[in-house]
This record gives sequence, structure tokens and C-alpha cells, in this order.
Amino acid sequence: MQTSNKVFIGRSLDGYIADRNNGLAWLDMIPNPDGIDMGYYAFMETVDAILMGRVTFDTVCGFDIEWPFKKPVFVLSSTLNEIPEKYSGKVQMVKGDLPSVLKTIHEKGFHHLYIDGGKTIQSLLNEDLIDEIIVTTIPILLGGGSSLFGAMPHELQFDHVHTQVFLNHIVQSQYKRKRG
Amino acid sequence: MQTSNKVFIGRSLDGYIADRNNGLAWLDMIPNPDGIDMGYYAFMETVDAILMGRVTFDTVCGFDIEWPFKKPVFVLSSTLNEIPEKYSGKVQMVKGDLPSVLKTIHEKGFHHLYIDGGKTIQSLLNEDLIDEIIVTTIPILLGGGSSLFGAMPHELQFDHVHTQVFLNHIVQSQYKRKRG
Repeated sequence: MQTSNKVFIGRSLDGYIADRNNGLAWLDMIPNPDGIDMGYYAFMETVDAILMGRVTFDTVCGFDIEWPFKKPVFVLSSTLNEIPEKYSGKVQMVKGDLPSVLKTIHEKGFHHLYIDGGKTIQSLLNEDLIDEIIVTTIPILLGGGSSLFGAMPHELQFDHVHTQVFLNHIVQSQYKRKRG
Repeated sequence: MQTSNKVFIGRSLDGYIADRNNGLAWLDMIPNPDGIDMGYYAFMETVDAILMGRVTFDTVCGFDIEWPFKKPVFVLSSTLNEIPEKYSGKVQMVKGDLPSVLKTIHEKGFHHLYIDGGKTIQSLLNEDLIDEIIVTTIPILLGGGSSLFGAMPHELQFDHVHTQVFLNHIVQSQYKRKRG
């Protein structure tokens, strides 16, 4: 069975996914009167489940909105002991090394995964486990915050698939890992 | 007299302008059989002179090529004492704080400047002195090296002007500083 790990994420021009105060307001700085989704829902159709880190899970829980995911969410954490009851049935905890975490998720029947959260993305990149990246660049230099990418002991080449501009100011590029 | 400070630079998908060994070979990783310039010469027509840092100057001097700039080059350095004689007439040293360095260059009749080199770009951004950025993204994660952007005490918003894709894999976006 073919599997894939995909990233869909917004970043500032200087590569941050959250500002120094963990703020995300800058993601919405370009007026979007018609609420276009910039490919998010079409992307979500291509995955079976979501794998995110603890920080991203806490961030989503902190939003004053309905639980936004229709697909199963796996939270990767070495410290979290249990998922709050209000999320039971929606969220499952996973622990351990990445290959065994992925194996566990695949064995549950979820093969194409949306990987979310800076640390989780970086962990998978470190083991060359990311197959696709859709990165949406907001025209701001934040000057600090949480980085999308981190230090890695190796280089990873990608093929550029497609780039489009939304709302005149937001540039979204799709990349696939170039292997072999 | 209107002045402007412009950046035209290549970076990796993770925001580096040189790899861990100061290598630049990855900038040419996408085959370019016809040697297209990706807008470089058209950009150079829009500037009067080049302001670069010491590291960039040393890098250019180290290339086994003819001196590549037809316009005057100013090298910003607090440590360099004199320009090697072979560059006399092509390169001038400038020292001091940025506003006075820029004033000196403007008084010589050069008003639109190509700002080159990571540290020099970062220094100007720190004082909100960059007006335009043309950034060309190569589809590779280097995992380390010299960063294009650095930490800043403030955010800077830009307007996205134009994005185009070269050689199917290289994404170039033009941004102008959004002021006021």
C-alpha cells in the first residue's frame, strides 16, 4: 500500500509559522472578503488523517471554534498522557519513534497523512519522511518566532510542481520530494 | 531625489543563501541549458550601483571569472583597510553607520542601489531601509548555512508585486515594502 506524508502550511517571507508570541494573526493580514480557502479543502481530500505535534494540538484547542477537522487526528507527544475527554473519538495519542508511529497509523487504515506543526514537520524531514510540501507565503518579515524548517544533517531536493498567487499577495508553491 | 535599496537574491526553500560550507553550487542545481538570467540583467538596469558586505566581496573575488559588475561597487566593511589594487576604479570602500554610508553613496550620484549579501541585507532591514526584494527560491532544503533573513526587533510588511516560475522549478517573487 502506498503511503504519503504531506505538509500544507503558511509561513512568513522569513520562514516563521508563528510570531514571537505564538501569534497567527499575520496569517490573515491580506483581506480575504470571500473567504477563499487557498486549496485547503481540496488538499484535505487527499489525506486520510492528520498527524500533529502537541504544540499544534494545544493551539487548535485554544481556538474559539468548533473542532475543525473531519478526519482522524493523531497527536504525537512524549509528554501528553491522555487526550481531554471532549476530544475522544476525534483525537488519538501516538508515542514512540517515527517509523513505529507511522506504522501504527498505517495499520489503522490511514495511509495518506497531513503532517502539521513545525516540530513534527522537522522531525519527519530529519528522517526524510516528507513527500510533499504545499507552502503558502505571506508577505511579511516577522523577524522572529517559530521556524517552519530547522537544522538538518542532510540536504533534501524537491521538484516544484505548481505555484499560484492568491489575493494578489499570497504565493503558494507545491513541492514533491525528489528521490533517487 | 528619490532613492531606493533593492535586493535580488537566490535562496533555498529553507531560507539559506549559502550552504554550511559557504557553497553556492545548489543555486545551479536546476539545469539551465540556455543560460537564462531570470531577470538579473533587467534588474541591474534599474540600479546605479551595488552595495555589498565584505563576505560577499570576498566571495565574488574568489570566483574564477572576470569582474562581473559593470556598475560601481561599494563594499561595506569595518575591518577592510584597502581594496586590492586590481579592483581600483571598480570598487570603493565605505564605512560607518548605514545612514551616513547611504548619504555618501547618494552624494556621489548613485541613488538606486542593489544591496547584496546576507549581513548587509539584514542590517538594512533592521533599519527599514530595504524598498524592494526579488527573491528566487531553489527547491532544496539545505538544513543549514547562511540565512537570508535574520532576527529583527520589528515586523515589516511587503506588497507582493509579481511571481513567476523559471525552468519549471525556480520560483521568483518580487516584493515592495508597504509603508504608511
